Amino acid sequence: MTVDLVITNVNLATAVANGQPYGGQLNRALAVHNGKIHWLGTPGDAPTAATVFDAKGAWLTPGLIDCHTHLIFGGNRAHEFEWRQQGVSYTEIANRGGGIKSTVTATRDASDETLLAGAQKRLAALMAEGVTSVEIKSGYGLTLEHELRMLRLARELEQHNPVTVRTTLLAAHALPPEFSNKDDYIEHIVQAILPAAADAGLADAVDVFCEGVGFSPAQCERVFEAAAARDLAVKGHVEQLSNLHGSALVAAYKGLSVDHIEYLEAADIPRLKDAGTTAVLLPAAYFFLRETQQPPIDALRAAGVPMAVATDCNPGTAPQASLLTAMSQACVLFGLTPEESFYGVTRHAAAALGLAHKGQLAEGMDADLLLWHIDSPAELSYGINLIKPSQRWVAGVAQ
Amino acid sequence: MTVDLVITNVNLATAVANGQPYGGQLNRALAVHNGKIHWLGTPGDAPTAATVFDAKGAWLTPGLIDCHTHLIFGGNRAHEFEWRQQGVSYTEIANRGGGIKSTVTATRDASDETLLAGAQKRLAALMAEGVTSVEIKSGYGLTLEHELRMLRLARELEQHNPVTVRTTLLAAHALPPEFSNKDDYIEHIVQAILPAAADAGLADAVDVFCEGVGFSPAQCERVFEAAAARDLAVKGHVEQLSNLHGSALVAAYKGLSVDHIEYLEAADIPRLKDAGTTAVLLPAAYFFLRETQQPPIDALRAAGVPMAVATDCNPGTAPQASLLTAMSQACVLFGLTPEESFYGVTRHAAAALGLAHKGQLAEGMDADLLLWHIDSPAELSYGINLIKPSQRWVAGVAQ
Ligand SMILES: [Zn+2]
Ligand SMILES: [Zn+2]
Repeated sequence: MTVDLVITNVNLATAVANGQPYGGQLNRALAVHNGKIHWLGTPGDAPTAATVFDAKGAWLTPGLIDCHTHLIFGGNRAHEFEWRQQGVSYTEIANRGGGIKSTVTATRDASDETLLAGAQKRLAALMAEGVTSVEIKSGYGLTLEHELRMLRLARELEQHNPVTVRTTLLAAHALPPEFSNKDDYIEHIVQAILPAAADAGLADAVDVFCEGVGFSPAQCERVFEAAAARDLAVKGHVEQLSNLHGSALVAAYKGLSVDHIEYLEAADIPRLKDAGTTAVLLPAAYFFLRETQQPPIDALRAAGVPMAVATDCNPGTAPQASLLTAMSQACVLFGLTPEESFYGVTRHAAAALGLAHKGQLAEGMDADLLLWHIDSPAELSYGINLIKPSQRWVAGVAQ
Repeated sequence: MTVDLVITNVNLATAVANGQPYGGQLNRALAVHNGKIHWLGTPGDAPTAATVFDAKGAWLTPGLIDCHTHLIFGGNRAHEFEWRQQGVSYTEIANRGGGIKSTVTATRDASDETLLAGAQKRLAALMAEGVTSVEIKSGYGLTLEHELRMLRLARELEQHNPVTVRTTLLAAHALPPEFSNKDDYIEHIVQAILPAAADAGLADAVDVFCEGVGFSPAQCERVFEAAAARDLAVKGHVEQLSNLHGSALVAAYKGLSVDHIEYLEAADIPRLKDAGTTAVLLPAAYFFLRETQQPPIDALRAAGVPMAVATDCNPGTAPQASLLTAMSQACVLFGLTPEESFYGVTRHAAAALGLAHKGQLAEGMDADLLLWHIDSPAELSYGINLIKPSQRWVAGVAQ
């Protein structure tokens, strides 16, 4: 049998738990066939291949996975950032129409073309750094029509780019101007928006913003019940600014991930472990908001809860289109090791999205691969804007 | 007369103090001739030009200036970063050969080609963001031969790139292994290295590391005396980790800039103002070192001391090749406004390098120009990896 591609003379950072840092295997070869990883072994044993790529001692990693973004939005909030830096109060900024409401308005008002062009620019920035899978949330539409439009545009981005997109319905992001009562809006989500998104096959998962300024645990649970009834996986923005035990709620629904979790309480951590829920760290939001409460990294590590790292790319609290920078921030701000940051954007990020065939170099996995001219995978987390992959393959195809 | 180039229908962020934010002028035209800005005015009054570029309402800024980098070095310190994140103590890292010594060894051992290739990669990253002038320090050679080699390689980078390089001799960076006594090494700098660099025309300025772990103010003054005798401008790494009043010393020599200055004392600020010395903020080093002592921004602002912002790009404490990220960090970490960050990489950065003809859009200035598809220049400081200039001109030549 002749395989499509063999990459040889390569160091593998497999992200497989094999007892070596980064799941490392030195001086190997890897075969790709039909878009999948077909074989790994020593260069001398490699199968015949239509194409042989000599990596000359470079490192190969799985494609990076950004498992939490709000990549599609209208406008930007640079003016608001400027006001804040000039000392304008949050109240005054709200009075001037700032905050998430301004993004909802700008998103609704923007044409499909404008929204796609803006998201495409940010997606291109992520892909240049090695992102081959990205989650994209709705949540700036907040009506049936506009939430579904955001999800549809996310699917469209996937069609035009060598990237896997996972869509997440985040209708429970904020109270839209059409509603004065949060319970009423939650009922509208449960009765109308979520069923329509599910029927259209537009949502791979369902997310909520569980916070005083967002929705209560009881309101979030209504959304989770509706998601469960449709067999949709759930996740949550939880414990970012306070502890409402949203993590325990997500775990009760065997959710894919709990995201932010700066205020996560130690007592809730075993629930995450038992439920197989991934803890998603979002250090860019922590950085831009100048937060001081760190997520309970030591306790999560001790409990063996998988930790993912994502950009949270959004116009208000995390205006950042760099997953490599998020890896560095996770180390510097939260104390992760470079190896933990690496698993955070590969194996654990895949788990946070339910992508069983991505995030590791192993037989049968999707052949989303990155080649890096580095001495050690620690270099991925070490700095800002220092490196990029020199070669990318998506589903086995060179980009 | 026909000029070389007119850029029309453009918003100008001139960085000239004209009472408008960013020195703004809306809907203008700008003429370039012989590499200089020849004229600014309304589109209807523009002179005839060989080339007309319709900017269609985009923004034009001066080329960005990174006024403090250690861009040339051998190796990297990712392994050391990894040790630190794993909890290895500073003492143990030093015992393992870590710290600046490891970079000195790697730099001395690297070939010219290797050093140039590494620096070229980082320079390319800076240029893609709009950097058209960059300062490059020596300081990882620490012998006559190797300090001069670093400066010579910096000049070589300038020859191969559309960029202005200013070289700074930083022999007084650390004690080299050849010396056991700091005073002896300082005498070697004063008697041998500095004169040789001056005679060869390789140093545009002279820098020192004034700190307990570096050199004392008295030792730094010996270097400054020698620089002054050769008519070389001086600057200093001062008040980064403690207050030795290095800033006052730099001001006494009418130095170009004081850099870091987290521990700068209020009483020394008027000396900077009187001496015309620029305060250079290096937020990336502050970020990566997890420092908590902020530079006295309010006092500098109140005193009218010009503040520049730079990357400090170096392998140990600021592994960052992004000046736009430094602008964002200066806002988020130090409380600058986006407008202050903008002056920090244009007009004030030019002053920190003695580049009288750069950093502003005004008649007679060098035509280093950047075009940005943005709604406001605040977007330059607003996020990480969100934007890049869509068009660059260096000395009037499109890149
Ligand atoms: Zn989010
Ligand atoms: Zn420095």
